[in-house]
Amino acid sequence: MDYAESKPWQVRSLIREGLIDVPTTGMCNGYAQGNLVILPEELSWDFLLFCQRNPRACPLLEVSDAGSKSFPITAKGSDLTRDIPRYRIYENGICTGEPTDISSLFDEYQKTKGRLISFLIGCSFSFEAELLEAGIPVRQIEEGVNVPMYNTSIPCTSAGVFSGTMVVSMRPIPHSQVPAAVSVTAAMPKVHGAPIHIGYPEAIGIKDLSVPDYGDPVTVKEGEIPVFWPCGVTPQAVLMNSKPTFAITHAPGHMFITDLKNTVLKYS
Amino acid sequence: MDYAESKPWQVRSLIREGLIDVPTTGMCNGYAQGNLVILPEELSWDFLLFCQRNPRACPLLEVSDAGSKSFPITAKGSDLTRDIPRYRIYENGICTGEPTDISSLFDEYQKTKGRLISFLIGCSFSFEAELLEAGIPVRQIEEGVNVPMYNTSIPCTSAGVFSGTMVVSMRPIPHSQVPAAVSVTAAMPKVHGAPIHIGYPEAIGIKDLSVPDYGDPVTVKEGEIPVFWPCGVTPQAVLMNSKPTFAITHAPGHMFITDLKNTVLKYS
Repeated sequence: MDYAESKPWQVRSLIREGLIDVPTTGMCNGYAQGNLVILPEELSWDFLLFCQRNPRACPLLEVSDAGSKSFPITAKGSDLTRDIPRYRIYENGICTGEPTDISSLFDEYQKTKGRLISFLIGCSFSFEAELLEAGIPVRQIEEGVNVPMYNTSIPCTSAGVFSGTMVVSMRPIPHSQVPAAVSVTAAMPKVHGAPIHIGYPEAIGIKDLSVPDYGDPVTVKEGEIPVFWPCGVTPQAVLMNSKPTFAITHAPGHMFITDLKNTVLKYS
Repeated sequence: MDYAESKPWQVRSLIREGLIDVPTTGMCNGYAQGNLVILPEELSWDFLLFCQRNPRACPLLEVSDAGSKSFPITAKGSDLTRDIPRYRIYENGICTGEPTDISSLFDEYQKTKGRLISFLIGCSFSFEAELLEAGIPVRQIEEGVNVPMYNTSIPCTSAGVFSGTMVVSMRPIPHSQVPAAVSVTAAMPKVHGAPIHIGYPEAIGIKDLSVPDYGDPVTVKEGEIPVFWPCGVTPQAVLMNSKPTFAITHAPGHMFITDLKNTVLKYS
């Protein structure tokens, strides 16, 4: 079954019931999806400040109240511990599990160790729909793979314990469509906005496009150049560098689907 | 002397030496100015979250490191305790002083009570320059008074101890130029962006345009309608509602002048 035309609350409900446990790409056309990061309260100030200082890579869609299991602003009635198809648990920076439900783990942590705070960060799935609408190819969708992502030498602005370099996603764009690709995505700053770099991968420390650091390689055709956007993996990479005692994220590609229309995100 | 063509670091230095203690309107053409809020560390999470949840009224330009007296990202070498012409001290929500230098007060507080954190919030001075450039009148500049500001019934999204309604600034715009005024300001979301309401003041709880809650009344001419923008006084009003034990802000109109070009703010 294809969930492209389903409403976000319907799909969240199916995920919650355990009936969907696959990546959310292509689900709920027109609605924004987000990256999840859950942290102990004592790390939250530094992380929120990191996001504020690096809005290109870490555009915040919502921050939960301390201890809350919901994102009521972007997804009324949501349960962020059950509405994502697959999570990743990190202990001291090491992934120790990939469950499909973190509800009891979340409760247990809060009972014994303290409050958790959840962060929802914009995702490029939103602007890919707009690129396609503008007739601009999105190669990894054509090839049915994950978008290629690369570590770069572009420094992030540090905040407290968090520092590091930006992770970028890459889409090959035909020369004649590069300006349009910039314009289309620049209009959507809440989901990473305009590219951060165009062509010349070596200038930002990328040695070999065919060996991405995350995701899958894609074909760059004759007449196309690689275009690089700030990527929502940046906060996760920076976070893991600092080896927090405890953190939970979504599993790659398994996003939180919000009730926010991509179009509304442009103007809010 | 007119400081319109001066560089921000020159004017900050003159302010620091005590040679300028007047409002900063019209100084350093082309550079963004900001609203200041300084809070004890224990209130900072709630306030940062309030700004994240209300970006139209509270667009954050920079948040200091805990205990720091500088905004190094937007103004290299700045001293936020001396580079503003006039400050306001609040104790338990009551204004207890309007000094021109808070350097020793800041140090004293930190020595005896704990760390302070400083927030810099975008200001509509930035978009007024662009309105004028587009041939759109800015009445309070023509009339040489402060912009009229009003309490409204538009709810802010609460965060922790902070809740309240939005404060708006009003500029009368000729009917034919209202769409252009929307477009010009929508392009600058870091300094409040597009209007929040157009015409019909009673629909947002404003009873009498000639009696603003802050600032001065201005003339609305035949053929003009009042246009309302989210205002940087909102966070101060919300903050004072909660009567924090201690807070420092800039005095109205006496802003922090950053090294950020307004043009760069559109695209960063």
